[in-house]
Amino acid sequence: MEVKRILVVGLGLIGGSMAMALQGFDGAEIVGGVRSQSTYEKAVKRHAADRITFHPEEELPDTDIVILCQDPSGIIGFLQDNRDKFKPGSLVIDVCGIKGAVMEAAKCLPDTVDFIGCHPMAGKEVSGIDNAEGTLFRNTHFIVTPGPNATEEHLALLDRIAAWCQFGDVVHTTPQHHDELIAYTSQLMHVIAVSVCDGEDFFACQGFEGGSFRDCTRVAALDVPLWVQLFTLNAPALSKMVGNLEERLHAYRTAIEAGDRETLAAMLKAASDKKKQINLERARGDDVRHSF
Amino acid sequence: MEVKRILVVGLGLIGGSMAMALQGFDGAEIVGGVRSQSTYEKAVKRHAADRITFHPEEELPDTDIVILCQDPSGIIGFLQDNRDKFKPGSLVIDVCGIKGAVMEAAKCLPDTVDFIGCHPMAGKEVSGIDNAEGTLFRNTHFIVTPGPNATEEHLALLDRIAAWCQFGDVVHTTPQHHDELIAYTSQLMHVIAVSVCDGEDFFACQGFEGGSFRDCTRVAALDVPLWVQLFTLNAPALSKMVGNLEERLHAYRTAIEAGDRETLAAMLKAASDKKKQINLERARGDDVRHSF
Repeated sequence: MEVKRILVVGLGLIGGSMAMALQGFDGAEIVGGVRSQSTYEKAVKRHAADRITFHPEEELPDTDIVILCQDPSGIIGFLQDNRDKFKPGSLVIDVCGIKGAVMEAAKCLPDTVDFIGCHPMAGKEVSGIDNAEGTLFRNTHFIVTPGPNATEEHLALLDRIAAWCQFGDVVHTTPQHHDELIAYTSQLMHVIAVSVCDGEDFFACQGFEGGSFRDCTRVAALDVPLWVQLFTLNAPALSKMVGNLEERLHAYRTAIEAGDRETLAAMLKAASDKKKQINLERARGDDVRHSF
Repeated sequence: MEVKRILVVGLGLIGGSMAMALQGFDGAEIVGGVRSQSTYEKAVKRHAADRITFHPEEELPDTDIVILCQDPSGIIGFLQDNRDKFKPGSLVIDVCGIKGAVMEAAKCLPDTVDFIGCHPMAGKEVSGIDNAEGTLFRNTHFIVTPGPNATEEHLALLDRIAAWCQFGDVVHTTPQHHDELIAYTSQLMHVIAVSVCDGEDFFACQGFEGGSFRDCTRVAALDVPLWVQLFTLNAPALSKMVGNLEERLHAYRTAIEAGDRETLAAMLKAASDKKKQINLERARGDDVRHSF
């Protein structure tokens, strides 16, 4: 498949980084779609794409790959508003953190357009094009949730894109499985971070914090409207994960309050053994399912 | 005060790093006390100290500064066993993560010996002298809990030691206040990390984890016997912190389950604003109480 034009809609942290990382891919023109004058100016100044436009929808009829990098409601709205403008045979992907709702919305597209959900497991605790960089995806996971009609040609194209952007591996799964696991590995970490920052001693603790506190709370400075969407669009899986964590914390608290050193030691050993094992597997590279 | 000999008892991650960081301080001889042949050999090979001994207690009568780097029960036992051997006028400190119980135990020392509790807010997710390094303390907090009889001379000496080891600042507080805040900033982070690793999806999540998951669980591969002591010696403060976190998680879960976007947005905004503010203060250096 010949790729002459790639359109990246939304040049925030992920979209801006995608546009930068894709430069040079197959010699295609990279077009970036923005909404605000401020992002436009920053994108031009940083050469985030070959061309920046306020009207990405006008590019659709001549675009081979469309990468939707808005928040979930922005993606869903863009698909609905422009369903008939996409080029027949084109590949449309998104990069947001929830896949079920987005894949459902993509059913509005005509059969001639192939939508594949994607989720780069990359990010920063800061947002916007100011923080975008072309190397953001190096050695991170690129999760892909193909629909039932995804073509082999498009999946191979995604593999090439992932390699070009220096992702560490490509992981294929279903939207449902993605959303269940992401509730654990990503969303729960954000709920923990904000819950820790809600602590009444938060400001008093300055001078007493070490690496573990900074690491655990790093992602708390989050983009509120985005995460409200991500949390509520995945409410059943996420609330189950939060509930499970409440139970495990309660079990630790019970053992600590009782001064039950034996139980506490057994609990700590089980958890730390699991962590040590996964560290070993990572060191051996066993967690890379599909490497280049 | 002339310092001719510094004795570091216990050459694990912190003690080994201390002995390495202190080399050259005032031209003093650095003596390292070990228990196992394996640590002895590694310490000699890495030149962790000027001299390594299996009998640190024999050094006490001629040592000006003693740094106890065992686990809490090791420190308490060493103080009790050797209370009469310390050199009159010497400074004795420890570096463990709990201060109330250690300061209490140090009351067994004669009045001629000055015990000052210390806690370097530095560490790694791995332990032992293999992972020790002389630069471990750079830009971290050195928390100091002086007893009522701590001399100005010894406090000034600790400031010089902290500067030599490149700590970012020295924070003075009471043992009780230390233990309350450390329950939040350190111990709770470890309870969270192990609780997350207890998740039934822990191994299934490989391929789906990003930076936030790795950061939050980093410290889960912990030293079990050490953390059983730290948790149980600080049970009242820690169980209160865990209980508070359970409540906050429950509040998030309630808002998520109800699909209450307004409440969720308000909660996320409050927490992320606090985190952003503390990030700003750190960037300005406002959290450094006493810098060199």
